[in-house]
Amino acid sequence: MSLLVVGSVAFDALETPFGKVDRTLGGAASYFALAASYFTPVRVVAIVGDDFTDKQRAIFKGRKIDLTGLEQVPGKSFFWAGRYSQNMNERTTLATELNVFADFRPALPEPYRDSSFIFLGNIDPTLQSSVLTQVRRKPQLVGLDTMNYWIDRTPTELQETLKHTQILMINDDETRQLTGEHNLLRAAKHVFKMGPRTLVIKRGEHGALMVHHKFMFSVPAFPLEEVRDPTGAGDAFAGGFMGYLAAVRRVNEQSLRAAMVYGSVLGSFTVERFGVERLAKLKRSEITARAKLFSKLTSFKL
Amino acid sequence: MSLLVVGSVAFDALETPFGKVDRTLGGAASYFALAASYFTPVRVVAIVGDDFTDKQRAIFKGRKIDLTGLEQVPGKSFFWAGRYSQNMNERTTLATELNVFADFRPALPEPYRDSSFIFLGNIDPTLQSSVLTQVRRKPQLVGLDTMNYWIDRTPTELQETLKHTQILMINDDETRQLTGEHNLLRAAKHVFKMGPRTLVIKRGEHGALMVHHKFMFSVPAFPLEEVRDPTGAGDAFAGGFMGYLAAVRRVNEQSLRAAMVYGSVLGSFTVERFGVERLAKLKRSEITARAKLFSKLTSFKL
Repeated sequence: MSLLVVGSVAFDALETPFGKVDRTLGGAASYFALAASYFTPVRVVAIVGDDFTDKQRAIFKGRKIDLTGLEQVPGKSFFWAGRYSQNMNERTTLATELNVFADFRPALPEPYRDSSFIFLGNIDPTLQSSVLTQVRRKPQLVGLDTMNYWIDRTPTELQETLKHTQILMINDDETRQLTGEHNLLRAAKHVFKMGPRTLVIKRGEHGALMVHHKFMFSVPAFPLEEVRDPTGAGDAFAGGFMGYLAAVRRVNEQSLRAAMVYGSVLGSFTVERFGVERLAKLKRSEITARAKLFSKLTSFKL
Repeated sequence: MSLLVVGSVAFDALETPFGKVDRTLGGAASYFALAASYFTPVRVVAIVGDDFTDKQRAIFKGRKIDLTGLEQVPGKSFFWAGRYSQNMNERTTLATELNVFADFRPALPEPYRDSSFIFLGNIDPTLQSSVLTQVRRKPQLVGLDTMNYWIDRTPTELQETLKHTQILMINDDETRQLTGEHNLLRAAKHVFKMGPRTLVIKRGEHGALMVHHKFMFSVPAFPLEEVRDPTGAGDAFAGGFMGYLAAVRRVNEQSLRAAMVYGSVLGSFTVERFGVERLAKLKRSEITARAKLFSKLTSFKL
C-alpha cells in the first residue's frame, strides 16, 4: 500500500565530532521517505528550489520513491545548519533558512489522491490539514509529527488536525508541552481526547514508548559503539514505523509493536553515517538482521 | 542461597511534590535488603546509632532479614535529607550527616563468613574489599555499586575492589566518569578490563542496560502514572537483581536477563510510595504479576 508523506526536503550542513558536511540532502521527509521505502512504495509531497538537482533526485530514485508531488520552484531550497556537541547530547542550530519552503502549499497530484496511509511531517498544522482535505476517502491511517513551535503558535489549528490523526509521534518534551502534563501516561490520556488513539513518544538514545489506550510497548534504542550523526533518526524512525504498517496494511496491536521495532531499526542505521548516507543504501537483509538483534536485546524468560 | 549486603542503613527526610516525611527508614542497604528478601534470605552488614529502635528493626524482621551483622553503637545513625523538584527530575540534597557511619568498619559475624552471593553497596572501596577478605571462600558472585565520590577520591582502591567484582551496577554518569568514555558500549569494554564481566547501567526512568562481553540486554522502566518518591529505586533494583540470582543460584545469560526484569519490578514498586513503605509490604503475587507486565510491555513478533 502506497504511503504518502508531506514535509521538508532540504539541504543540511552538519558538524559532529566525527566530521563535517556541507549541503547534503536533508529534511524530515527525505529521511522518512528513504526509511519507509524499504517496506512500501512512497509518495513525497514537498517543495524544493532550483538548487535541487539530479544528484539529490537520484538518491530518491535509487529507492524508487515517487517524486511526482515534489514541487520545484525558482529560488533556494530549505537550508539547515547544525552542530553537535562533543557527546552529541546537545545540538546548536547555526542557520535555518526557509527559502522556498516559506511559501509551501502542499498540492497532491491526482494519482496521490487515493492514498490511504499518510504521514503529516512537522509543518504548519493548517498545511497538514490541507493534505487530508485533498484525499478522496478517509485514510486508513494518519500519522503526525509536530514540534514546540506549532504547539505554541498554532494550538487551535493543531487541535483541528489532531482530530483527524490516529497516531501522534513526538518526543517527551513535545508531549509534555502539548498536554501540560509531565507524566507521560497521564499525558497520553490527554492526547487520546484530542483524537489520536496512539501516542508514540520518541526518546532518542532512550528508545521509544508507545501508549495505546489498551496497551503499552517500549523499545530501546539500539546500543551502538559509534554514533556519527544523530540527524534524522526520529524521522527515519517514523518512516520505518509507517512504512511497515503500510506494507502489512493492518493496524493492530501486533503490527504496531513490530512497527516500533522497525522504526528503531531504521533510526539506528541512520545515525551510523552522516546525513542519509547509510539510509539510502541499506539492504533488506541488514534490516531483517538488526530487527532480530532487537529481539535478542529485549527478550527474557521469567 | 543467602545474600549478604554491606552498605548504609539510615534515616531519611524526604520531600517530593506528593508529600514530606521526616526520619523514615532509608539507606541503600535497607532498600536493597527489603527488595532482595522476596527472593532469598538476606544478611545485612551495616552500622546504626542508638536512635535505631525496634520500630525500624520490625521493618526488617517483617521480611525475615538477618540483622546479626547490624552493629549498633552510641550516637546517631546516618541521616540524609533531600528534596525533589516538581517533575522529580532533579534532587537537592539538604543534609548529609554521616554520624556513626563515619567510623563504620564492616565486621562479618561468624555465620556470615560462608556467604557466596555478596553485594558491596556504595561505601569506601577499602571497606568493600575488607568484606571480601572476611569470607572463607571465593564467592560465587560479587556485585558492586559505587559513586562519583569514590571514583574521584579513591580510584586506586576502587580498581583493587573491582578486580574481585563480577557485576558492576552504576548509572550512566558514573560509567562515563569511571571509564573516561562517553559511549556506553566502549565504556563497558574498559570496565571488562578492570575485572567485572558484566556492567549493569541503571538509567532511572529510562530503565537499565546490561552489557556482558557476549550479549546485551535492555529493560525499560515500568511506566507509572504516579511516581511519589524516587528515593531508593536504584538500590531496590540492585536488591531484586541480586536476590533473584542468589535464589536461582545460577549466573548465566538467562538468569541475568530475568534478574534485570526482577530488579526493574522492585524498583518500580519502590517509587509508588514514600521511602520503603511499598517495598516493605509487597506480596509475591504482585511481583509475579508485574514481571508478566514487563513481558507485555516489551514483547513483539516480527
